[in-house]
Amino acid sequence: MFFLGRLLSGGACKRSVSLLRTRIAAPEVKTSVKRHSSGPGQRMDIRGIYPPIATPFTQKELVDYHKLEENLNKYSKIPFRGFVVQGSNGEYAYLTSEERVEVVRRVRQAVPKDKLVIAGSGCESSMATVQMSDQMAQAGADAVLVVTPCFYRGRMDSRALIHHYTQVADACPVPVILYNVPGNTGLDLPVEAAVTLSQHPNIVGLKDSGGDITRIALIIHKTQNQDFQVLAGSAGFLLAAYSVGAVGGICALANILGQQVCQLEQLCVSGQWEKAKALQCRLIEPNAAVTRKFGIAALKQTMDWFGYHGGNCRSPLCPLTESETKQLRSDFTSNGWL
Amino acid sequence: MFFLGRLLSGGACKRSVSLLRTRIAAPEVKTSVKRHSSGPGQRMDIRGIYPPIATPFTQKELVDYHKLEENLNKYSKIPFRGFVVQGSNGEYAYLTSEERVEVVRRVRQAVPKDKLVIAGSGCESSMATVQMSDQMAQAGADAVLVVTPCFYRGRMDSRALIHHYTQVADACPVPVILYNVPGNTGLDLPVEAAVTLSQHPNIVGLKDSGGDITRIALIIHKTQNQDFQVLAGSAGFLLAAYSVGAVGGICALANILGQQVCQLEQLCVSGQWEKAKALQCRLIEPNAAVTRKFGIAALKQTMDWFGYHGGNCRSPLCPLTESETKQLRSDFTSNGWL
Amino acid sequence: MFFLGRLLSGGACKRSVSLLRTRIAAPEVKTSVKRHSSGPGQRMDIRGIYPPIATPFTQKELVDYHKLEENLNKYSKIPFRGFVVQGSNGEYAYLTSEERVEVVRRVRQAVPKDKLVIAGSGCESSMATVQMSDQMAQAGADAVLVVTPCFYRGRMDSRALIHHYTQVADACPVPVILYNVPGNTGLDLPVEAAVTLSQHPNIVGLKDSGGDITRIALIIHKTQNQDFQVLAGSAGFLLAAYSVGAVGGICALANILGQQVCQLEQLCVSGQWEKAKALQCRLIEPNAAVTRKFGIAALKQTMDWFGYHGGNCRSPLCPLTESETKQLRSDFTSNGWL
Amino acid sequence: MFFLGRLLSGGACKRSVSLLRTRIAAPEVKTSVKRHSSGPGQRMDIRGIYPPIATPFTQKELVDYHKLEENLNKYSKIPFRGFVVQGSNGEYAYLTSEERVEVVRRVRQAVPKDKLVIAGSGCESSMATVQMSDQMAQAGADAVLVVTPCFYRGRMDSRALIHHYTQVADACPVPVILYNVPGNTGLDLPVEAAVTLSQHPNIVGLKDSGGDITRIALIIHKTQNQDFQVLAGSAGFLLAAYSVGAVGGICALANILGQQVCQLEQLCVSGQWEKAKALQCRLIEPNAAVTRKFGIAALKQTMDWFGYHGGNCRSPLCPLTESETKQLRSDFTSNGWL
Repeated sequence: MFFLGRLLSGGACKRSVSLLRTRIAAPEVKTSVKRHSSGPGQRMDIRGIYPPIATPFTQKELVDYHKLEENLNKYSKIPFRGFVVQGSNGEYAYLTSEERVEVVRRVRQAVPKDKLVIAGSGCESSMATVQMSDQMAQAGADAVLVVTPCFYRGRMDSRALIHHYTQVADACPVPVILYNVPGNTGLDLPVEAAVTLSQHPNIVGLKDSGGDITRIALIIHKTQNQDFQVLAGSAGFLLAAYSVGAVGGICALANILGQQVCQLEQLCVSGQWEKAKALQCRLIEPNAAVTRKFGIAALKQTMDWFGYHGGNCRSPLCPLTESETKQLRSDFTSNGWL
Repeated sequence: MFFLGRLLSGGACKRSVSLLRTRIAAPEVKTSVKRHSSGPGQRMDIRGIYPPIATPFTQKELVDYHKLEENLNKYSKIPFRGFVVQGSNGEYAYLTSEERVEVVRRVRQAVPKDKLVIAGSGCESSMATVQMSDQMAQAGADAVLVVTPCFYRGRMDSRALIHHYTQVADACPVPVILYNVPGNTGLDLPVEAAVTLSQHPNIVGLKDSGGDITRIALIIHKTQNQDFQVLAGSAGFLLAAYSVGAVGGICALANILGQQVCQLEQLCVSGQWEKAKALQCRLIEPNAAVTRKFGIAALKQTMDWFGYHGGNCRSPLCPLTESETKQLRSDFTSNGWL
Repeated sequence: MFFLGRLLSGGACKRSVSLLRTRIAAPEVKTSVKRHSSGPGQRMDIRGIYPPIATPFTQKELVDYHKLEENLNKYSKIPFRGFVVQGSNGEYAYLTSEERVEVVRRVRQAVPKDKLVIAGSGCESSMATVQMSDQMAQAGADAVLVVTPCFYRGRMDSRALIHHYTQVADACPVPVILYNVPGNTGLDLPVEAAVTLSQHPNIVGLKDSGGDITRIALIIHKTQNQDFQVLAGSAGFLLAAYSVGAVGGICALANILGQQVCQLEQLCVSGQWEKAKALQCRLIEPNAAVTRKFGIAALKQTMDWFGYHGGNCRSPLCPLTESETKQLRSDFTSNGWL
Repeated sequence: MFFLGRLLSGGACKRSVSLLRTRIAAPEVKTSVKRHSSGPGQRMDIRGIYPPIATPFTQKELVDYHKLEENLNKYSKIPFRGFVVQGSNGEYAYLTSEERVEVVRRVRQAVPKDKLVIAGSGCESSMATVQMSDQMAQAGADAVLVVTPCFYRGRMDSRALIHHYTQVADACPVPVILYNVPGNTGLDLPVEAAVTLSQHPNIVGLKDSGGDITRIALIIHKTQNQDFQVLAGSAGFLLAAYSVGAVGGICALANILGQQVCQLEQLCVSGQWEKAKALQCRLIEPNAAVTRKFGIAALKQTMDWFGYHGGNCRSPLCPLTESETKQLRSDFTSNGWL
């Protein structure tokens, strides 16, 4: 109970406690009351849809906090479970440590208390990740999302990753969510590492952006006794992930088509699979366009089209070429979204 | 109508005609009557589960036709839709052209007429594939499964693959099923090529063994007006594939746990997703063990355990090591199958 | 001495015997007399430059033996050590077994007796490779080049490959050369397998087309007591390969710039490294253009430009697009070759 | 002349000026006088061998500056051209910005003035890289080594990378060296980008750690009019790199076998290729062991064996297992180094 003790006594994590749920709660139960219940042996309930929000910049590439808040205001009408600050789409790799913490603080202030703020706190070293996680918790994050370190990927085997995440989770005042994003890291968190880590009381789940549905199903299966929650890391395979037991999604596309992604969630959790399938299929190309295919510049360009503040990325990310912009638009229009 | 004319006049394909279905048939309808109906503008209905059967060898590595037939007899109690002869698990790459045709002939003779026999007829050159497809049709195959040529993979772009498959499908007396198996070929059939090819009247579907569920869903979505049928190439993502609109599976694991894979199919098509999920999850590790993890030697070893004839592979495929055999067994016992 | 006994008694291999050299011969000695000397404990000397010849086809994609012989006649003025028939550039993967043997027979008849004919005899199964190697030896091949089987690459570990090559080398009436071409096979022959196999009396060397110079140097280093001869599989790294101890090259570019590749060999073996460097550098782009970048269609297009018979490839290999042809030409003109 | 003007007026770069050499200097000339000559239109001469020094840590994983200086003292007897601070082997990804700068400052203070200090200043964003490069120049770096940003590797095409490096080189008070290390970054700097960037007056060369010798030769060939200097990024292919025109190496192994790596350099530049080959071959396995195979923990373990301060890595890099340590030792003993 080393973790809960710390959790209950800490200042920053009081809100977290109210978000715990019984570890053996039947995953089918889905009312908002249940998922905020608390008591001994519980874990934070992280079910639902989250946009991994983009970071708007000024023309001089400084963080534009004003635009950030305006985006958050617009998102307030959408039934998101919360917000992920500094997932890969937040260009966190391009922010200084100070900016990373400050963005979390501003988001926490801007969004209603019942929305979870999950902050991406991963750094390459364990030491820096521990420190960053703590700072983000102090800044109001309800949980932290910790990407696999990857620069020395040849040595990032299960042993190293279990060691890393255990250090971070032991020290972190708020719950930890593992983050597997092989498209950026060139590294897949080994299934056995995820299974071992699922037993840590302060590790509540995994965001998997790789899209290998067999792997996702296997992790869910092998952690079924741990109340370990898996979130799809992309809208492209959200339905499939729900079909094998995922409980939500952190989806770049939700920055743009937030209502639709939440609607897909509802169709899945209520078992309307045929309708879900139809909606899912129309989201795949737009989703690919703003992620794998054209990246963050496309996400931001599309945000502009949909009335949010997108704008430019930090360098070296470049604006889209004219031909890319045309293709991007077509990926939305051909599916009926523009 | 160039294809239908040939189809209706040909000798080898008379049975095929009886297997056609209306192209606009609602995919939800699943009775055996419907799927054998015929009429103008129809395509062969290939829905259902197929084991890609293993090829038993004698100690001297010759094809053991007797054991092959005994296996087929044992399979006759299982509600398979048919049999795939010379998928990758049939060691087709190790058979001579004559053996490939002869195995198809024997299987056709051994199995009931209402079971489809789908023969893997892919070769590296278009010329050889056209010839092999024809020979297999003459030997009684109801359809052919054509793997992407891959040795010169750097040049196997959409243009080359569309050209290849069009030649094959134009000439082939029975329907053609595309076969994407990047684990063996190191090549992914481009989505755009699959979509273009779906318009060919003699190309009825795709077996996709790659497991990228987003890609599978996208292909289904973009071919929805073509009556193009997608089959999951592995039991590992069968449920997920059904959830996005696949209509069946060609699953190595069905050589061993055929009843269970067919049961999973039934749960999916009848919408019992929770039960399907529970069963799916127990199949992932056994499936991985006999495919990606330990390969055909493991498939055959496990067939021996389950009362089928597995036996040795052709060289250079080696028997499992002792430690691999132990792990293989554990992947079945830990999921309650042994 | 199991191998030598068979070798000396066999009919097909009488020529081979005359090509043996003392296994402990100093690699620096380079006269044509030495490399044809014979005696107990010797291996065939394979030093020198070989074009892996292209296979001309008629418009109907049949092998054009007449054009093949005309090409060989034109090559007769170039100081090649011999010819490789059915390397990857010979489209061997697209030839039938009968064509493969017949092409070897024709080449052996067409070229002078002092030129080595090395025949690519690799098939996927050990059984087929043994048989094909034997047939090619009967057809007059002085040695066979055996590509790593690769379709089940996940299981083609050192154990399987050592088993495969040992079976082939034990049975083969002429010497065996290992062939590593990861660009096509998606598989790298493990260094430890190469080192083990170098001890087989009937395995005389390795063609390595991967271009990893560290790996090539390591294999040379670890087989230095075995009289094991390494040939560069591409003109792109020929100088570098010589610099670490390779003794020759099988280079697609030699089909076009044969004199130049042989000149590069001479500069290397005579230690004129500065001149070698200047020549090597001018060959890299043309070489890449006819291999990795545009493939066999480019090789054949360029052969046409240089007065050889290139012509079309077998399908599914497609002709170059107009834009590719333009780039190809530029890769030759910008280096002063056209 | 925008760059030279800034260079000549700046405080931090006065030493740099004395290290310039005539851009058209014949690369064969190798005296220490020549390589320090200066004049208009010159670039810094970076020829020679550099260890990318390791960063020693205390038991608590803090930078141990004392041990760092002791290592540098021991290196003073070796004819290195200089030191690379915070290449990948310096665990720079695990250091804070402050630590990165401070380590450079300490190294500059500790080593003689005639040794070049090259500081790894790459960050993910252009903004941070510009700032870090400036700080390192202020701390005394003679040049900066800038790794390709890689987290959003899907968008790091030539356009983005040229943009990035141009921004950095325009702003940087000392010369910039490009750094390509695909093993860590999962990204290869495109040849065309390297060629374009070679024309920037403040970009003097490239460290290439990928080991693709054909690519290295091509870059040298295509930049031959730019006085662009290529350094091998590993001792594994140092000889081969010299053979195609590289002018030095930044080699992890030089942290341990510094004398031997410098001796290999001398053999190469003086044209003693046979001796060079013999020495090169004995360095491959030890080099692989402390880089690709076992990573920085192995480098540090071996440093301990050879009388330097190696010690532990920052977490999440783990110490070697017992079996790895045994193999590591064997890779040195079997080549006669221990």
